[in-house]
Amino acid sequence: MKIYLDCYLCLLRQGLTAVRRAGLSENNQLAVINGVLQALQQLQPGQTPPVIATQIHQVIQETTGIPDPYLELKQRSTQKALALYPRLKEIIAAADDPFETAVRLGIAGNIIDFGPADDYDLWASVERVLAEPLAFNDLPELRQAVDRANEVLFLSDNAGETVFDRVLIEQIGSPVRYAVKSGPILNDATRADAVAAGIDQVAEIVEIGCDALGTLLERCDEEFVQLFHAAPVIVAKGMGHYESLSSEGPRLFFLLQAKCNVVASDLGVPLRSLVVKQG
Amino acid sequence: MKIYLDCYLCLLRQGLTAVRRAGLSENNQLAVINGVLQALQQLQPGQTPPVIATQIHQVIQETTGIPDPYLELKQRSTQKALALYPRLKEIIAAADDPFETAVRLGIAGNIIDFGPADDYDLWASVERVLAEPLAFNDLPELRQAVDRANEVLFLSDNAGETVFDRVLIEQIGSPVRYAVKSGPILNDATRADAVAAGIDQVAEIVEIGCDALGTLLERCDEEFVQLFHAAPVIVAKGMGHYESLSSEGPRLFFLLQAKCNVVASDLGVPLRSLVVKQG
Repeated sequence: MKIYLDCYLCLLRQGLTAVRRAGLSENNQLAVINGVLQALQQLQPGQTPPVIATQIHQVIQETTGIPDPYLELKQRSTQKALALYPRLKEIIAAADDPFETAVRLGIAGNIIDFGPADDYDLWASVERVLAEPLAFNDLPELRQAVDRANEVLFLSDNAGETVFDRVLIEQIGSPVRYAVKSGPILNDATRADAVAAGIDQVAEIVEIGCDALGTLLERCDEEFVQLFHAAPVIVAKGMGHYESLSSEGPRLFFLLQAKCNVVASDLGVPLRSLVVKQG
Repeated sequence: MKIYLDCYLCLLRQGLTAVRRAGLSENNQLAVINGVLQALQQLQPGQTPPVIATQIHQVIQETTGIPDPYLELKQRSTQKALALYPRLKEIIAAADDPFETAVRLGIAGNIIDFGPADDYDLWASVERVLAEPLAFNDLPELRQAVDRANEVLFLSDNAGETVFDRVLIEQIGSPVRYAVKSGPILNDATRADAVAAGIDQVAEIVEIGCDALGTLLERCDEEFVQLFHAAPVIVAKGMGHYESLSSEGPRLFFLLQAKCNVVASDLGVPLRSLVVKQG
């Protein structure tokens, strides 16, 4: 997905939230924000929002000297989600269609966000996602693709959401590789976050070889890029993957909540829509 | 008032709203927004938000070649406010304290805004402002100052708000000079907007000698600056004047609604507070 002018506003807002969350001094806040302003001015045509968002969060990490400013928030998100795990499993056990319900719970977990939409109610999201129709419903295609595939590559999004991913993975028959960031960026899941959610019990955790938001293939390592190109089915969670991989073809299935106007309008759905979309 | 980092976000948002309202092509939108980003980066310490907001709107006027992109909106605002004028006069006629009620109506009209807070309900504002306590209540000082003064300088804000100003001026015993912008900028009142509101029937309209937002004295002409310095009492409507004149001393009385978090927090009041504050 290309970057829109509204993304500029959102990226500046994310930068502001992040420098404050990182507890930077006023001068350092200004330095980072000036860096964001400059990066926005230097955007090249065709660059996607995750490119610049990654840059913002890396500048913050460098300026603060804190490699993982979201560590505590991520741990808390995972704990909160783990506390819901037994209830999520009960919902699956009682479901007429456990796979659809698991997909929906995966989408419910996508409400966890400290970037574009960092004000959320996790259980309200579960209730809403179980009740509402999908604005994009490529669920039949996803079901068929997953049933036929001998393996599934799963692109993770945020820490805490990982617990919901685990519930979904437990309903996928084939072996799953669960791709995480190789280093901390925003509240995206790393190996440690995936393990804390118990993903290692249900999938093979693989690293993408970089710590960029979304999946910027040009920054991932060769091993992951090969995995990516060889995977018969790829489940991609959240807006960041859609923003960076929307043109990568029908092997991809984007599972997300359209939490910002730009992604919603690029998809042609109302804000807050629930999406299962084949690439 | 100094500029805060939150102002950056608001100014970028105002720029985005304005380029869209002006109907610029995507390329021209990008050019203006890049200009905004650059201007924000080049901000000097001590500059106030109206300086940069003025710059943004001037770039838009130049890029579009439309000298007054808000003309129609201003005319509509004035028409809507004029339609309320008889009801406002009835409220004054029935008031126990017509002067306080007129001051409150003046503040009610300050809800009209196409800059920081361009989504408003005019009549709801009237009802709220008549009922709610003032967060800053220098009304006794204002009353005394106006009673003692042989003339009052009134710094106008937005077109449409002008009608509410007229109601207030009609309750001020002394002669009033009503200062307007010398040229169009955002939806600020010009002479034409003031005349359309009937201000010429109740005050002498004077121009400030420039078309900058708020009152940037260094840009006003000598005639106005002399008027400003000689005035025994100055009533300044809206946030822009507070942002540019907050350190100009006790002759000034700021009448405003704190429509943005930055001004509210600079004043030490909750967002949406009603303010009568002596400088």
